[in-house]
Amino acid sequence: MKPQRIGLYLLMLALSINSFGQESERDSGNEGLMVRLAEIKIDSIYVDEYIVILKEESEASVRLEPGVICIYPMFKKENPTEIRLLEIYANKEAYESHLRTAHFKHYKETTLKMVKSLELIDMEVIDTESMPMIFKKIK
Amino acid sequence: MKPQRIGLYLLMLALSINSFGQESERDSGNEGLMVRLAEIKIDSIYVDEYIVILKEESEASVRLEPGVICIYPMFKKENPTEIRLLEIYANKEAYESHLRTAHFKHYKETTLKMVKSLELIDMEVIDTESMPMIFKKIK
Repeated sequence: MKPQRIGLYLLMLALSINSFGQESERDSGNEGLMVRLAEIKIDSIYVDEYIVILKEESEASVRLEPGVICIYPMFKKENPTEIRLLEIYANKEAYESHLRTAHFKHYKETTLKMVKSLELIDMEVIDTESMPMIFKKIK
Repeated sequence: MKPQRIGLYLLMLALSINSFGQESERDSGNEGLMVRLAEIKIDSIYVDEYIVILKEESEASVRLEPGVICIYPMFKKENPTEIRLLEIYANKEAYESHLRTAHFKHYKETTLKMVKSLELIDMEVIDTESMPMIFKKIK
């Protein structure tokens, strides 16, 4: 194992212990969160249609599924065929349940021909304790 | 202008009109939002140190600056040298003011040697109206 990798694990351990110390003061409820960036490239002839379907699907997911904490869809201003989503699920079960919903299946079926590539990138959150503060200003 | 680009502008116009129609019911306060994904690659020998500095800086920014709506720092689980930030500023002025703060300047100076590459990608939000719902579940 490379020294910098060991260092990183020590850092993550330190952050965990720090979080643990704060659990007694407030229950962050962020244990087991699944955080992901999705990078999706859309065929340019379908981009308008795709965005409408994605908007409906992500809105329904957050509204109807307690375990879908956040699906935040964006596209690059300079290139609207490049879609990016920040996805936060309460845990792995919440994500698996999401895949079984009617709205997700509808999205998947209708957009299959529109998607040129899809990459799902698992992310580690750097500051779990600050998450309530980070997102509370969004109106 | 390509037909699909015209279509996209029409879609964005339709979404704007739709948002405008809802403004009387609730003030979303999201006019002029500046949303960005930052893609930062860190020299692996500095990654632990960088993450500590970034965490301090992003926490201070959200806590101290009313115009910094969100700075959400993450790294790729598979490759912790790949940092990603979701950044939301109330407007351009809020971002420019952020660049002049002591905490940002400290971050920039101390991490300069650690950053191998930095890309700032301007993003368009697909569903502004749903932002309060998207982020309200984060605890």
